[in-house]
Amino acid sequence: MAGNVFGRVFRIMTWGESHGAAVGVVIDGCPPGIDISEEMIQVELDRRRPGQSDVTTPRDETDRVQILSGTFEGKSTGTPVSLMVRNRDQNSGQYDNLRDVFRPGHADYTFFKKYGIRDHRGGGRASGRETIGRVAAGAIARKILLNHGINVIAYARQIGDVHAETVDLDEIERNPVRCPDKEAAGRMKDNILTAKDKGDSLGGIVEIVASGCPAGFGDPVFDRLDAELARALMSIGTIKGVEIGAGFDVAARRGSENNDQITSDGFLTNNAGGILGGISTGQDIVVRIAVKPTSSILKEQRTVDTGNRDTTVRIEGRHDPCIVPRVVPVAESMVALVLTDFLLGRQYGTEWI
Amino acid sequence: MAGNVFGRVFRIMTWGESHGAAVGVVIDGCPPGIDISEEMIQVELDRRRPGQSDVTTPRDETDRVQILSGTFEGKSTGTPVSLMVRNRDQNSGQYDNLRDVFRPGHADYTFFKKYGIRDHRGGGRASGRETIGRVAAGAIARKILLNHGINVIAYARQIGDVHAETVDLDEIERNPVRCPDKEAAGRMKDNILTAKDKGDSLGGIVEIVASGCPAGFGDPVFDRLDAELARALMSIGTIKGVEIGAGFDVAARRGSENNDQITSDGFLTNNAGGILGGISTGQDIVVRIAVKPTSSILKEQRTVDTGNRDTTVRIEGRHDPCIVPRVVPVAESMVALVLTDFLLGRQYGTEWI
Amino acid sequence: MAGNVFGRVFRIMTWGESHGAAVGVVIDGCPPGIDISEEMIQVELDRRRPGQSDVTTPRDETDRVQILSGTFEGKSTGTPVSLMVRNRDQNSGQYDNLRDVFRPGHADYTFFKKYGIRDHRGGGRASGRETIGRVAAGAIARKILLNHGINVIAYARQIGDVHAETVDLDEIERNPVRCPDKEAAGRMKDNILTAKDKGDSLGGIVEIVASGCPAGFGDPVFDRLDAELARALMSIGTIKGVEIGAGFDVAARRGSENNDQITSDGFLTNNAGGILGGISTGQDIVVRIAVKPTSSILKEQRTVDTGNRDTTVRIEGRHDPCIVPRVVPVAESMVALVLTDFLLGRQYGTEWI
Amino acid sequence: MAGNVFGRVFRIMTWGESHGAAVGVVIDGCPPGIDISEEMIQVELDRRRPGQSDVTTPRDETDRVQILSGTFEGKSTGTPVSLMVRNRDQNSGQYDNLRDVFRPGHADYTFFKKYGIRDHRGGGRASGRETIGRVAAGAIARKILLNHGINVIAYARQIGDVHAETVDLDEIERNPVRCPDKEAAGRMKDNILTAKDKGDSLGGIVEIVASGCPAGFGDPVFDRLDAELARALMSIGTIKGVEIGAGFDVAARRGSENNDQITSDGFLTNNAGGILGGISTGQDIVVRIAVKPTSSILKEQRTVDTGNRDTTVRIEGRHDPCIVPRVVPVAESMVALVLTDFLLGRQYGTEWI
Repeated sequence: MAGNVFGRVFRIMTWGESHGAAVGVVIDGCPPGIDISEEMIQVELDRRRPGQSDVTTPRDETDRVQILSGTFEGKSTGTPVSLMVRNRDQNSGQYDNLRDVFRPGHADYTFFKKYGIRDHRGGGRASGRETIGRVAAGAIARKILLNHGINVIAYARQIGDVHAETVDLDEIERNPVRCPDKEAAGRMKDNILTAKDKGDSLGGIVEIVASGCPAGFGDPVFDRLDAELARALMSIGTIKGVEIGAGFDVAARRGSENNDQITSDGFLTNNAGGILGGISTGQDIVVRIAVKPTSSILKEQRTVDTGNRDTTVRIEGRHDPCIVPRVVPVAESMVALVLTDFLLGRQYGTEWI
Repeated sequence: MAGNVFGRVFRIMTWGESHGAAVGVVIDGCPPGIDISEEMIQVELDRRRPGQSDVTTPRDETDRVQILSGTFEGKSTGTPVSLMVRNRDQNSGQYDNLRDVFRPGHADYTFFKKYGIRDHRGGGRASGRETIGRVAAGAIARKILLNHGINVIAYARQIGDVHAETVDLDEIERNPVRCPDKEAAGRMKDNILTAKDKGDSLGGIVEIVASGCPAGFGDPVFDRLDAELARALMSIGTIKGVEIGAGFDVAARRGSENNDQITSDGFLTNNAGGILGGISTGQDIVVRIAVKPTSSILKEQRTVDTGNRDTTVRIEGRHDPCIVPRVVPVAESMVALVLTDFLLGRQYGTEWI
Repeated sequence: MAGNVFGRVFRIMTWGESHGAAVGVVIDGCPPGIDISEEMIQVELDRRRPGQSDVTTPRDETDRVQILSGTFEGKSTGTPVSLMVRNRDQNSGQYDNLRDVFRPGHADYTFFKKYGIRDHRGGGRASGRETIGRVAAGAIARKILLNHGINVIAYARQIGDVHAETVDLDEIERNPVRCPDKEAAGRMKDNILTAKDKGDSLGGIVEIVASGCPAGFGDPVFDRLDAELARALMSIGTIKGVEIGAGFDVAARRGSENNDQITSDGFLTNNAGGILGGISTGQDIVVRIAVKPTSSILKEQRTVDTGNRDTTVRIEGRHDPCIVPRVVPVAESMVALVLTDFLLGRQYGTEWI
Repeated sequence: MAGNVFGRVFRIMTWGESHGAAVGVVIDGCPPGIDISEEMIQVELDRRRPGQSDVTTPRDETDRVQILSGTFEGKSTGTPVSLMVRNRDQNSGQYDNLRDVFRPGHADYTFFKKYGIRDHRGGGRASGRETIGRVAAGAIARKILLNHGINVIAYARQIGDVHAETVDLDEIERNPVRCPDKEAAGRMKDNILTAKDKGDSLGGIVEIVASGCPAGFGDPVFDRLDAELARALMSIGTIKGVEIGAGFDVAARRGSENNDQITSDGFLTNNAGGILGGISTGQDIVVRIAVKPTSSILKEQRTVDTGNRDTTVRIEGRHDPCIVPRVVPVAESMVALVLTDFLLGRQYGTEWI
């Protein structure tokens, strides 16, 4: 069935495969009067693109975005905003040896089982290139949010076994792993390069913080803010876990430790991660996601082909030894899309009517 | 905005507050010809209801379900199945002191901010009683899944700092904490009672396993199976984290450790938790959720009233010192609802057409 | 698949069969703070119910509505509003002879073909009783609209070959056929009684006018106001046509006749029926629907049974010889539901931001 | 709010304005394994495009479609199919005099009221060019339907006051007005040219017939087949009425005339237009739509500008004196999209399981 639409009020549909003609997104429900330019979208795409540093893939994709509809004299008109990035003339031939082989950890096996046909070149629709549409739409969502004082920032909280101990937001874009702790960033980078040398890859944890979000976002009981964030983030290809606020740590806590007590000056703590009963409290919204180590590795692995014959595979080519730095803008985009959807939905209550 | 509908093909709408006339659910899209009885639904509701043991609230709610529509001579007809449970004549007066006070950790504060009006009695819509509708619908979903060989089972994996070390499915319903490890179950129960004695509460982790699910469930890129499971489970009131397969452990792993290699006899491991690229692989689907310690505690806590005046509150009454055992059937229901939705959606591919 | 939900922001799900335990509706997305009482809903249900006069069925159904959730101290809270009407203990045995026979003009044949099972008693889900939920929800929608100065009124424009020549809104509820032309109303009534005497039935046309609706309702290109009205009205069981403004008369017109010219005092005409480009203009919204003659007639008709054996059938019992008067409140309700959905959706533009 | 998505299972999103960079559509939910080529889509676009004859606009738009995603080696893969048609470098300057003026009968006024901003060039999003996306998606829908033996054909039933008296399907594409009655076609053409000479335009009626559709399509009570057809067709810019089967004629009929009696050889008549209770009967599905006379006329008309100042306007340029022939492929496409959505949804019942 159809599964490529996200959002209710600010609604996007992404399209495109890694080795097709192009990838893109259409935004349905973009409010009128928003300043939109290819330049502002390109800034975010450049943060996502490969080839930024030696801890990401050396593939150099320029990924130039084109606005095809929905704006007039530099402003949105309320009609669908169509954004497209042409795929470059890629060497599809390099994938010929993968035509009938399922790469472990990839979607090859399940796409083949589900659809009975598979574009084997570079992951097809399951490629990370699909996130170009998300980031392009996210750039516009973030602009709308900023107009309302809401800011979304993400960073590497953990890579391999190295944790960020401090959070200095200014540091994030200064290091190639997008870690807010300068010292940890250095060790993260070293670990990635070590894994890369061994033909292996590393995972990590990305933390996303949305500040400036007013109380009242989220529609219980199913379209809760936390539920929508979980869905949005888990829909990114490499994510295996989502937690809000104290997250999995709550399991070992007592209620008296975990409850966020309230005073006339506000909440004393933020274990809830800014969400109670599925609705934003007005505090920072804090989410963390678990990023798996890149599935494409040089090490030989056992697998089967489409005829279920045993074989082995080594994934040659220029792959990210750790995808965490490039997940950062994608995660920001998904959170921004969720918040924009709630921002633009009908709001009620004492502060909203 | 509207937020009380879940599912696309097997679609439910739940309704009702803890101290209104009744709670219920309407199922839209139930296939015809399914044997449905009040008895089979009641079995699941009895697993969810309070008063089951001394580790849950002693409130005794009989929670008798009535089928109001959608069946004819014991079988579903394809029309909406409406299920209702009358609320008993409850002592709403006991909540008078909470009329203007926000209980820490509860949705009181956010519902008031969002809607500007609040049914303060027992949590209103944010009460756990809302899950009655989910479990009632889940009972029918589980029946449909079983007809197709798919079984969903959940259990307490962790309560406080006690972990289940072994998984014996037969053990789950034999102990009041629904733990598959008999020895751990005893310690879990002791810990809960200790916390209860101190006027406090405990959290934990529930693990859900769906077996028998064929490859092919999930609609990339947004309606992925993992994304829908995350949304479904995070929509339960007390959940702060969701992880699939190896979950947050992937952060510290290398790709060569984490990839599930494949042989002609099947996958060698299941770190992916039965989902690749958002589509089921045919292996067991494994999900874990973090349950926060019950917010209602006897201990005195700081808070404010609706006029933002400082005050304190002690939550009297009969509350669950640990909600984990009662979350188990709710989590099973949510997973069953997601899987049924994919089961009944259009399927493609070599095994499906 | 699921098909019992209507609306996006003000969203309803109806449920129930004519001879089940009850019929009802759940409203998801009702704004908080609306005064809601069983009495105000009952007023509209009484306009829909049978037994109002000798031109409708003499069945006397009291149809008392109960509010099961979503209100607190007489006001909506923003949570789902669940409304139920118990079916009376009906004589299902009278339908035994129809168990295996398809009544011409009814949904018997298609429900059986689609679902393979059929509740043959009184039409089951395809019964006009299903509209109780629509009218109950419509009563609340109309209240919300009136709070914003929008009023929806419907009436019989034509019954059989008698047309209303004048429109006096005060006249509508004074005659049993709900015709705004007193003189025509008398002839309509006579014609209905003549048809009834012959064991036959009559069709007609209902006109619906919504006044006070501001410019800006409707979301091009698919969720246009006219498209949503057409869908809403065509979803009523007996409707075979929908037209907006000049409707089918436009076919024989020239552009210069049909265009509504504009002056600084407003539009000179309203051939568009208050909708241009799928968006309301601020003029009256005018819609007409074609109501087929009641399918249940006493006259003998040819048909088949579930084994495709030729037979004949005469529909005994107390049926409406003309359903037009009872369609009036249902049509009003559907238009009100559509307008409320747009009213509560995010609005933009010079007058809205 | 967002309004550019149509369908649930076979779901499309259209985008683009008449004078932007391009127009297009993304199809979400296209089944895998369908043969798709730019040629097959181009055939349908060529039927829709301007400049086909002297009864349509002489603008010559080549409208070449490009497939941007969703196919691999000529077959669909189950991923989104993105289709784009570049707009030619158009003379936008010709619209400068309309920048602040609302053309009567057009969406200029309402788009401005709703969004507060308007792309005045050639109708912007409200232009007929928006239907390119519908026809492109419709071409694929029709292919899928044909694979299942379902065929959708439309034609001019009436233009001005000339009616088709006979229906010869082979005749339709032989005359420029797409009328199945050769003799009437000649008179229709004459009437259009007469109107054109006078700087005026004509309306008409298009009839759409879907044959080969099995019983069982349609999901009561809101997603009924007739309701979805009405919505789909009324969403076309120039349509003011939709009727099914006998349509508005039922108003003056008796039940005994209108009911379609059934025999073991099938239905004796088809007044219902192939739909009972919102579900297809297996007969031909017959729908008619009222097409208004083109709003763009050379005759001087009264109007106002954005400052509500009185003025007059004459619409220069090359406009269709009658849009009926070009509505034909658009109407076919919308019906095909609806039927495909039901075809691909889950089907039940004796003939389906």
